[in-house]
Amino acid sequence: MSAPASETIDGVIAEIAFDKDGLVPAIAQQHDTGEVLMLAWMDREAIRATLVEGRAIYYSRSRGRLWRKGEESGQVQTLIEFRWDCDNDCVLLQVDQTGVACHTGRRSCFFNAVRDGKVTTIAEVVVDPEILYHR
Amino acid sequence: MSAPASETIDGVIAEIAFDKDGLVPAIAQQHDTGEVLMLAWMDREAIRATLVEGRAIYYSRSRGRLWRKGEESGQVQTLIEFRWDCDNDCVLLQVDQTGVACHTGRRSCFFNAVRDGKVTTIAEVVVDPEILYHR
Repeated sequence: MSAPASETIDGVIAEIAFDKDGLVPAIAQQHDTGEVLMLAWMDREAIRATLVEGRAIYYSRSRGRLWRKGEESGQVQTLIEFRWDCDNDCVLLQVDQTGVACHTGRRSCFFNAVRDGKVTTIAEVVVDPEILYHR
Repeated sequence: MSAPASETIDGVIAEIAFDKDGLVPAIAQQHDTGEVLMLAWMDREAIRATLVEGRAIYYSRSRGRLWRKGEESGQVQTLIEFRWDCDNDCVLLQVDQTGVACHTGRRSCFFNAVRDGKVTTIAEVVVDPEILYHR
């Protein structure tokens, strides 16, 4: 998507109900297949940067700074549509995922499941993390 | 899904990384269409009850108690599969949603979007909330 006007971005940020740490959870969903890829967190600047740059940019709680998804791994999420919920306290990014979303090299981060009564890994590694992170 | 053995449920709860309030975000996704319906929160007992009863049961932060989704509105979420992510700090419920997920009477809670540069409501009310909540 092309960048909205700055007043539109300001309006979105004013709508969002950030938590006491100034964050809101953000779900990334592959726009065409519907696959839920991951959940991360956004602060005001992450939302602004995501809308301006047209790619998913989160706030990394572990690094304490903005995290341009794919900045290290190349596994960028191109923004297709920015959505949020009825209570204004969760964001849903429709994205086009380059490669894989998960740092383990799986397409989606949600690869643990209870299936047939057992805890099971339901997705395979499709890219070696050593290749993603040049270790 | 049928209820897993209690040791399996204990194992899942032991895996999950709850936040300092003892909660974890839980995304509900319609299992066949892939539609992201809502995000709510779960504590240990909500996860146990969800797996035992085979329906989505959340911890309502506003009510300060377990919330059996649909207990008032009848809009139950039957559990199809329980999943969680690589960091163990987010749950993804595959569900079969009866009726609508959103208290506004929309199918999904994520009906606000930036589309064509404007803030837009992208989903219609399909059930009158006065009918859902018998007001």
